[in-house]
This record gives sequence, C-alpha cells and structure tokens, in this order.
Amino acid sequence: MAIRIFVTGGTFDKEYDEIRGRLYFRDSHLAEMLRMGRNRLEVEIRTLMMVDSLEMTDADRELIARNCRDVPEDRIVITHGTDTMVDTARVLAATVPEKVVVLTGAMIPIAFGSSDGLFNLGGALTAAQCLGPSIWITMNGVVFPWDDVRKNRETGIFERRIERAEGRPDGRA
Amino acid sequence: MAIRIFVTGGTFDKEYDEIRGRLYFRDSHLAEMLRMGRNRLEVEIRTLMMVDSLEMTDADRELIARNCRDVPEDRIVITHGTDTMVDTARVLAATVPEKVVVLTGAMIPIAFGSSDGLFNLGGALTAAQCLGPSIWITMNGVVFPWDDVRKNRETGIFERRIERAEGRPDGRA
Amino acid sequence: MAIRIFVTGGTFDKEYDEIRGRLYFRDSHLAEMLRMGRNRLEVEIRTLMMVDSLEMTDADRELIARNCRDVPEDRIVITHGTDTMVDTARVLAATVPEKVVVLTGAMIPIAFGSSDGLFNLGGALTAAQCLGPSIWITMNGVVFPWDDVRKNRETGIFERRIERAEGRPDGRA
Amino acid sequence: MAIRIFVTGGTFDKEYDEIRGRLYFRDSHLAEMLRMGRNRLEVEIRTLMMVDSLEMTDADRELIARNCRDVPEDRIVITHGTDTMVDTARVLAATVPEKVVVLTGAMIPIAFGSSDGLFNLGGALTAAQCLGPSIWITMNGVVFPWDDVRKNRETGIFERRIERAEGRPDGRA
Repeated sequence: MAIRIFVTGGTFDKEYDEIRGRLYFRDSHLAEMLRMGRNRLEVEIRTLMMVDSLEMTDADRELIARNCRDVPEDRIVITHGTDTMVDTARVLAATVPEKVVVLTGAMIPIAFGSSDGLFNLGGALTAAQCLGPSIWITMNGVVFPWDDVRKNRETGIFERRIERAEGRPDGRA
Repeated sequence: MAIRIFVTGGTFDKEYDEIRGRLYFRDSHLAEMLRMGRNRLEVEIRTLMMVDSLEMTDADRELIARNCRDVPEDRIVITHGTDTMVDTARVLAATVPEKVVVLTGAMIPIAFGSSDGLFNLGGALTAAQCLGPSIWITMNGVVFPWDDVRKNRETGIFERRIERAEGRPDGRA
Repeated sequence: MAIRIFVTGGTFDKEYDEIRGRLYFRDSHLAEMLRMGRNRLEVEIRTLMMVDSLEMTDADRELIARNCRDVPEDRIVITHGTDTMVDTARVLAATVPEKVVVLTGAMIPIAFGSSDGLFNLGGALTAAQCLGPSIWITMNGVVFPWDDVRKNRETGIFERRIERAEGRPDGRA
Repeated sequence: MAIRIFVTGGTFDKEYDEIRGRLYFRDSHLAEMLRMGRNRLEVEIRTLMMVDSLEMTDADRELIARNCRDVPEDRIVITHGTDTMVDTARVLAATVPEKVVVLTGAMIPIAFGSSDGLFNLGGALTAAQCLGPSIWITMNGVVFPWDDVRKNRETGIFERRIERAEGRPDGRA
C-alpha cells in the first residue's frame, strides 16, 4: 500500500535563521523524519509549497486539491500549518472524492529538539492506512473527521466542534 | 474515547548507565513521550513489567492478557520489546476477545536522540482509535494484523508473513 | 574555585511560542544545560535580565558591570546575545578591574535540538578557570580578548579584528 | 592557532546496534559535534583507534604518545574513554614534552540526546588554547592537571586527588 505525502510548509518545517535570528522556511524535514522513524511504509513525497498556513490562498488550496485528485495513490497525508488546517480540510472535502486524505502538522518545529512532529506524522501515516475515504485531521494523538474539529486559538489545541456519541473516531457508531 | 497503555519494557525504555557503561531499565519514558507529542488523547498508563522481551516468560504473557481483559477500556496500546512482540500478540489473540489491542516498540531507545519510538507511539495510539477488535502490531509506519507479521532477525525489520491482496491493512478487502 | 554565571538573555534562551508561532523569552536554560553537561564546577547563577542584545541599553550594561564588581567571585561567565556582545565587553573592560569575565552566547537557541550553546558554555566555563584577569569572549571554539574581536554581520561569525602574532589567545606572546 | 584532535574511542563514540540491541563503535562523532558547535577553530582530526578504554593496552598508549610527539601541532585534544583516562594522562606526562595535551571524554554517548560530550569538547578545545605545556584533563566543567585527578569508580565522577591551595587550575598559585 503506497501512501502519497504532500508537503505544504507550516510550523513543521520552520528553521532558525542563525544570522537574522528569526524563523524561516528552507527545506522540508519530511525525509529526515521518516528516516528517524525508520519508516518501512512505501511513500512518495512531493513538496507543493512552503508557506505559513496563515498566508495560504484559495489558489494554493485549489492546487492541493488538484494534486490530491491527480496522483494515482488513494491514500494521502498532507503536512500543513495548524492555523488554517481546518479550512483546507473543508475545501478538500468538497473537491476530493473517494480518497483517504489525512492532514497533520506540528505545534513545535521539527528543528526544535522537543517537537511533536514525529508523533503526529506516525499518527497520520497510520490513519491513512486504517481509515476510510474522507478527509481527516490527526493532531497530538487524536483523530478528527474534517467536519468535527476546530483549532482553539487561545490554547492552540485542536478539539471537537460538536458533541457526539462515543465510539469510533468519526462518532458515527 | 479513553485508551489504556500498558508498559512492559523493551528497547523503548532502555537507559544508559553512566557508571557501568551499559544499558538497563529504570523508569518508563511513556509520560515524557506523551508530553513531547503534546498528546491530547485521554490515556491511562500502567507499567506491568520492565523486561527485555527475550526474557519474557509465559507467566508474564498471561499477566499481560489478564490485564487486557480486566481493564474497563476496550482500546489498548502495549509497549513491548521487538524480539518477541509477535509471540505475545499470538497469546493475546487467543485469550483477549473483543478488544482492540495494538503492540508497538522501538528499534532505538527513547533516551537516544534519534529514536523511532515517538513515531511508533503516534502510530499505535492512532491505530487503537481507528481499527476494529483484534490484535495488531504497528512498527515503523506499518500496521500489521497479528497473524501476518514476523520480525526478520537479520535485518531487524517487521514484515508481512504471507502474500495477500492489496488494500486494507488486514488484507481482507 | 566558584564561578559566577550571569544570564542576560540572547539567542541562548529563546523559546518557541506554540500558540503565536514566534520566538520569545521565558526562563533561562542555564540550569538545564549544566545538568546535561553533568557540570561538577561550583557555580552561582543569577539572571540579570532576559533581553535581545539589540535592545540592551546603557543602563542595562551598567547593571551588568555593577553586578560583576559587587559579587565576591573573581571569575565570571556572562551569557549574552551575540549582536552586541562586543559592545558589552568594551564597557566591562572599562569598568570591571581585576576580574576574569568571559562572555558567551549561541547562534542557535538551546531549545533547538542542534544548538551550539552547550559547546560554547563548556568553553566559557573553562576559559574562566584558565585565563587571567581581563574581559574575554568565547564563541564556537575560539577564545578572543575583548579588544580583538568583532561579529561579522554578514556571516554571523565572530572573528579577530586585527592581525597579531600567533601563539597565546591574547596574541601577546 | 591550529589544534590537533586525536580520537581513541570511549563512551563518546558508542552507538546503539539496532539489530543486536547493544552498544558498539562505528564512526567517530567528532566531525558532527564540531558542526553542531559551529566550531571556528582550525582543527585537524585523526582517529587513532576506536576502543573501550578498559581494553586499551600499553602498546595503544605508546601509539598515542608517539602521535602526540610526531604531529606538528603544539596543542592537542584527545577524546578518550573515562575509565583509564588518568592512566593515559600519566603515560603522556612521562613521554610527551613541551606540548599542551588535553584529554576529555563523556559520561553519556553522543548518540544519546542528552550527552555531556559537547560541553566537554568545548571545554577541552578552550583549555588547549589557554593552558601551558603539560597534560590536562577536562571533564564536566572542571580542568584538572594530570597529577591531581582520579575517577571515582563508585560515582563515576572525576575529582581532585590531593588537597591544594585554591586559585589557578593547576593549584600552584
């Protein structure tokens, strides 16, 4: 089972600029993370963009959706900034039929020693194998369906939007 | 959805003894890993034992099975040494009905900077949420049903035991 | 031999703000670094301020100088932002007689996995033990006397200001 | 001022063998550590051996001494296992005249996330620049002359052997 990974930037891939003392994007850390995780799953990685998700445009989201539709793989993981991850999930739900798409990100850049990124990536790749066709978000151990998640701006935490029955992660059981 | 985590030792929790210059067990790194992963899933952790899985006895495996049956949670993650993880999975398949049990471990101790443990733990907690009642192993990005996995002693890698149809991780679709 | 450590902020102690996605100061990482280095030297730590060195004022520098003069210890290490470290060294050279003062910093925050901070701190504590009374800067393996160092703004690297005879680090032999 | 670095093995360079689950030597971590420390000092590295210092023979020590005498550099850092570092220092004191030689090591392998190695290496390179011709040991922030140091086998800590006057690190002032 091959999984496609699309990189779009976000906190995940922020680096520290030693000369100017600020955060910036350079290269994706995806390959390095898969190496650290001793990943044995067949994956294909493509970097679509390297942006802060607050600066992601409608055109960027359409580009992501088109790539999801066009690749041969049915199971896709997207690394994405956390601020507008839910917005992108909503666009994909409307435009990418019959594929399992899992968005994930990080609260702390991978380049920091104590990032949550490796934990989240492990979760996203697993969710892409186990879940059915729909758009999903996995963050910090929790699996959310696209229509039942929001990022709490004050705490920075992803949480369920609506109260549902306990049970399966999609709350439908 | 609360998930129970049982700690049994394994490479995961090996420490470096500064005075004697060798590896040993002290405390579990589970809590520290969940903190690094900014875990938001409700979990209950219990350390059942701290052993190298090559030294795990039948009595140890019965203890693990009994704990799986007795806890109220239906979804369970077990951290376990890799050498006999498949053996324990087989025992649980015969003795723990109607629960989702996911075993995972690490090729490199968490105490090392470049461990695969956080990646594997993220995968196991996600699998425990998404899969149905059976015994599963998640290692290095891949989800295996208990009866279709073995550890290749030469390469150290977990791989499928039998050829099956492509598709869902249990190969049954 | 007890050594006094003064913390003033700088890249050393920058943290990543998970909610706002930017760098900020919280607590000093000095104690954590000394623990990682298994430090066995007797040290006394005092945080004087937590500022970006570009925002350090004349009053801040006078405060640092007064603290250097007033503490009982003759050997002092100061952690400092790199941008104006040379300026502070010049002020101390004019106002702190008969003490060994070593300034150091980091190009990469300690909170990042791959910081140079631990390397630099090891160098500064060693320099404070081995050198004579004057103001010194140790950065990235090199020991500089206060009057023969500048930070190259383009490369971010500390380098000698003037050509001198080879030999002792103060170039006076 | 160019400094010669000799690598001899020790805890410093121990790796974790993923397949056999034990510690072993592969390559030196010196180049990687100097890169992390953003080292700007001119250094020449040569690996003389990769051994646990408990297994170091008289012939090994003679090889180290001969290399110290033969290289053009006057300032030398040796990375060495901690168990017999003091023994090697004694041999060098008898056989390497008129050079500054600093031995250092680590309590925790570099490959572990929380090693003291970078702190110790920063100290050793600084000591090699600042101290006069003799044999020295720098461990965990402290500078010792070769004839006033021992490793406490119970605690694993390097400590002074004899009580001396406070003051300079060689205790002679």
